[in-house]
Amino acid sequence: MQPDRLSATFSALADPTRRAILGRLATGEASVTELAEPFAMSLPAVSKHLKVLERAGLIARGRTAQWRPCTLAADPLKSAAEWLEPYRRFWEDSFDRLEAHLKAQQKDQGRHGGST
Amino acid sequence: MQPDRLSATFSALADPTRRAILGRLATGEASVTELAEPFAMSLPAVSKHLKVLERAGLIARGRTAQWRPCTLAADPLKSAAEWLEPYRRFWEDSFDRLEAHLKAQQKDQGRHGGST
Repeated sequence: MQPDRLSATFSALADPTRRAILGRLATGEASVTELAEPFAMSLPAVSKHLKVLERAGLIARGRTAQWRPCTLAADPLKSAAEWLEPYRRFWEDSFDRLEAHLKAQQKDQGRHGGST
Repeated sequence: MQPDRLSATFSALADPTRRAILGRLATGEASVTELAEPFAMSLPAVSKHLKVLERAGLIARGRTAQWRPCTLAADPLKSAAEWLEPYRRFWEDSFDRLEAHLKAQQKDQGRHGGST
């Protein structure tokens, strides 16, 4: 079965090297050799990661230049962020509750404890 | 090698059934039987997905009640959203550019073409 687009995106992001490659491409296009440099990794190993990223639509590779530069393609990241968005209330809620609790505590201290 | 936390999160999210389970748990706690209901799936198959989600810290399971209800644990989702955040400028940039382009076009039409 062909994995759905979102699953392919999350699966491609489930690797620290691939996330680091995307981080590098966020600063501008790069060749495979340039991408391999910061990692203690062979070119074929890096190429394998690039294929996963390319299949997931997270990078595009130049067709004309001989060095075939890789560039970041952010659309799938947008879909991933959109999927996560409705869950935001769960972590913001717990922060809001903490903030409300701390404010109530301060107010209480102000009422009972004076200015210490 | 133990996968890092963020990789475990993205890997757990790389499956439509697991994402649907999280969507169900966003509405409140549920038993394994309740979670299995909407999917044409055996209880052991659902349990396998729950184990992946639990290992990734995305769900917590009750220890006291006999039906061991599952609840959503959103902290790893927060980390995933935070990882995606710096890339936001890439998809918002392209939208901003489109908006600027459309505005410039409208202005240009206003100047040359009158009110059509």
